[in-house]
Amino acid sequence: MRAAFIAVGSELLRPGSRETNGGVLAGHLERYHLPLEGRYSVPDERDALVRLLEFLDPVPLVVLSGGLGPTQDDLTREALARYLAVPLVYHEELWQDIRAAFARWGREPTETNRRQAFLPEGAEPLPNPKGTACGVLFERGGKTWVCLPGVPAEFEAMLEPALAPLMAALDLKPIFRTTFRLSGCGESQVEENLKPFYRRFGSDHFTILAGAGEIRLHVHHADPDRFRAMEEEIRECVQEWIACEGEETLEGKVRRLLLGRGWTLAAAESCTGGAFGARLVREPGISAVFKGGVTAYADEIKTEFLAVEPRLLEEKGAVSPETALAMARGAARAFGTEVGVGITGIAGPDGGTTEKPVGTVCIAVSTPCVESVRRFLFGGDRPRVQMLAVANALDLLWRALA
Amino acid sequence: MRAAFIAVGSELLRPGSRETNGGVLAGHLERYHLPLEGRYSVPDERDALVRLLEFLDPVPLVVLSGGLGPTQDDLTREALARYLAVPLVYHEELWQDIRAAFARWGREPTETNRRQAFLPEGAEPLPNPKGTACGVLFERGGKTWVCLPGVPAEFEAMLEPALAPLMAALDLKPIFRTTFRLSGCGESQVEENLKPFYRRFGSDHFTILAGAGEIRLHVHHADPDRFRAMEEEIRECVQEWIACEGEETLEGKVRRLLLGRGWTLAAAESCTGGAFGARLVREPGISAVFKGGVTAYADEIKTEFLAVEPRLLEEKGAVSPETALAMARGAARAFGTEVGVGITGIAGPDGGTTEKPVGTVCIAVSTPCVESVRRFLFGGDRPRVQMLAVANALDLLWRALA
Repeated sequence: MRAAFIAVGSELLRPGSRETNGGVLAGHLERYHLPLEGRYSVPDERDALVRLLEFLDPVPLVVLSGGLGPTQDDLTREALARYLAVPLVYHEELWQDIRAAFARWGREPTETNRRQAFLPEGAEPLPNPKGTACGVLFERGGKTWVCLPGVPAEFEAMLEPALAPLMAALDLKPIFRTTFRLSGCGESQVEENLKPFYRRFGSDHFTILAGAGEIRLHVHHADPDRFRAMEEEIRECVQEWIACEGEETLEGKVRRLLLGRGWTLAAAESCTGGAFGARLVREPGISAVFKGGVTAYADEIKTEFLAVEPRLLEEKGAVSPETALAMARGAARAFGTEVGVGITGIAGPDGGTTEKPVGTVCIAVSTPCVESVRRFLFGGDRPRVQMLAVANALDLLWRALA
Repeated sequence: MRAAFIAVGSELLRPGSRETNGGVLAGHLERYHLPLEGRYSVPDERDALVRLLEFLDPVPLVVLSGGLGPTQDDLTREALARYLAVPLVYHEELWQDIRAAFARWGREPTETNRRQAFLPEGAEPLPNPKGTACGVLFERGGKTWVCLPGVPAEFEAMLEPALAPLMAALDLKPIFRTTFRLSGCGESQVEENLKPFYRRFGSDHFTILAGAGEIRLHVHHADPDRFRAMEEEIRECVQEWIACEGEETLEGKVRRLLLGRGWTLAAAESCTGGAFGARLVREPGISAVFKGGVTAYADEIKTEFLAVEPRLLEEKGAVSPETALAMARGAARAFGTEVGVGITGIAGPDGGTTEKPVGTVCIAVSTPCVESVRRFLFGGDRPRVQMLAVANALDLLWRALA
């Protein structure tokens, strides 16, 4: 079984807009192992909505948000009635509810508000604890349509009460799920390694998500044995890149590993300008292990603050594995920490040479036990090079601490 | 005429997800007065996508994003070919492009990547300046399908080159447009001040977009006189908050102002962990004015590196206007710059007190001409407090330099 979501509202088709209710709905449905088959935004136009409802005719559960207000362009009630081929019927008790709500705010409803007291014949009103627009529930032939207001707070408040009885009637059970976070690898490498997994399990209960320099694998299944077999196969295929499992983030893992060793950390950044530290401090409680850092954008700062030798800068250049390591050591020494990270590179668009093209980044980690240094060549524009530098610094760091 | 947008990707149907490419597309189409008739997200399933393409058969322009990668679940090429009833054809030149791109990164493509060299027969490849997934353009019977990668940076970069020839062929003329970036204000304040504008011009050619601590106002009109009148009215309504007009960013403006004065800049950050510096270095060529910074997450770093007096920290606390100013001055002194920025605060979720609740952030700017310090109380979670701290530090900075 599957569900579909329709967001009604011309504002959702305007520049820069993003629809969020569908993501909230997906979270509720996931608890019942009920995936969304699609997420559709349409303008405030009755006929467009009727056509979409017709298109979604085979879907057993359609949830709609928006278009339930009092104004002329709130047309969800009309569209649903037309699609179902039933008339709209006036409900005196709903009108009294609206009047009572207005009275509580010391106001009188206008005639416009009376529109909200009409429902498709045979529909059930869903009470709205936060506003005057009641929701609409319609069931017919084993199929269900649920209309809720578009205002996110009202949508969220009404969703669970509207869906819970349906889910209970369907006897839907919760499912097993987990996430693997991979780092230090590319998407196509991961796909290549996952071939045995796909051959054995297909891709139905599996999602691969790449972004911000990390790759996440989601796996879920209702059957616990099947789920465990899938988990195990994934571990076998991509073990070398798995940084975290479940809810843990890379920042959280770094914090946990440092706490475990009783070490603290400092960073020396150049081309990332502080983005590595900024990523770390997204983690609450990171102050227990992260003392701070120096952003050494100018060479003289590398010399003065991080004690990188001027001769090294001259001979090897500011962007070199040797300088990255000197920065990592310098940060640890200057901040009195056990662990140091050094990042230096050419983010572009200018500053590249034949020997060191734009995208060249050198990253070093220095701990009391191990020092690791790597030279990377990242493709893409300036923000992408910076983002990949941060992601790979985190990767080098957790591997050095593990 | 109208256009439709399809976002392909199972991740867009997951809890909490939001689709953003459609909002970017709407912005581009608006330039040509071309509205979106719908915005649809579907999972990585060929047949679901084919059904949706059939549903959208009457729409003359359909733009798709996502599903062009190298992996098994990237099925946009397959779905489009099936819907159009044409075979997929191998393009040797595309495969050579992919190999060349990998070679630049010092890697070899895997066999999986070869999928990206197949296009529906009769389709035209659209070059991707930022990745290996080329786009797909297909025209038939006065209708057009444009497939672009789902990665937002790639989608954005490829959108204009892909659409411009189509729009030219349709003889759709671009219109007058500009953007105002406002900083140091809230959305409801801006709405309040814009009331005279709305009364005079309505909201048809106007969009207000809030995000990442700044508010952007877009205005466009086909008629130059009307457009100039709208621009003028906006300036009158919100002059005090306008930081940039047109394409300029706040980072770019800071760079320009510093260059104009012949000054350089250093930053001292605490609760933002380097995010202020990271935001600055998104601007190419910022190295001419930004020497670097210190992330003083631990108090002893504030004392040692920034010469913040221990007595000040004791008496006023690490989060105080006095400490922020001492950090700004300390950064400028330590790095030998004319201008210093200091940021200190409590990003949460822990560490708040009755006197200084979570969200308290003090920001200072020190220049040879002026020193300004402000204490803020930001609402929201840890990432939001950090983001607003960075945005308001930039605001304080450009105002001090202007």
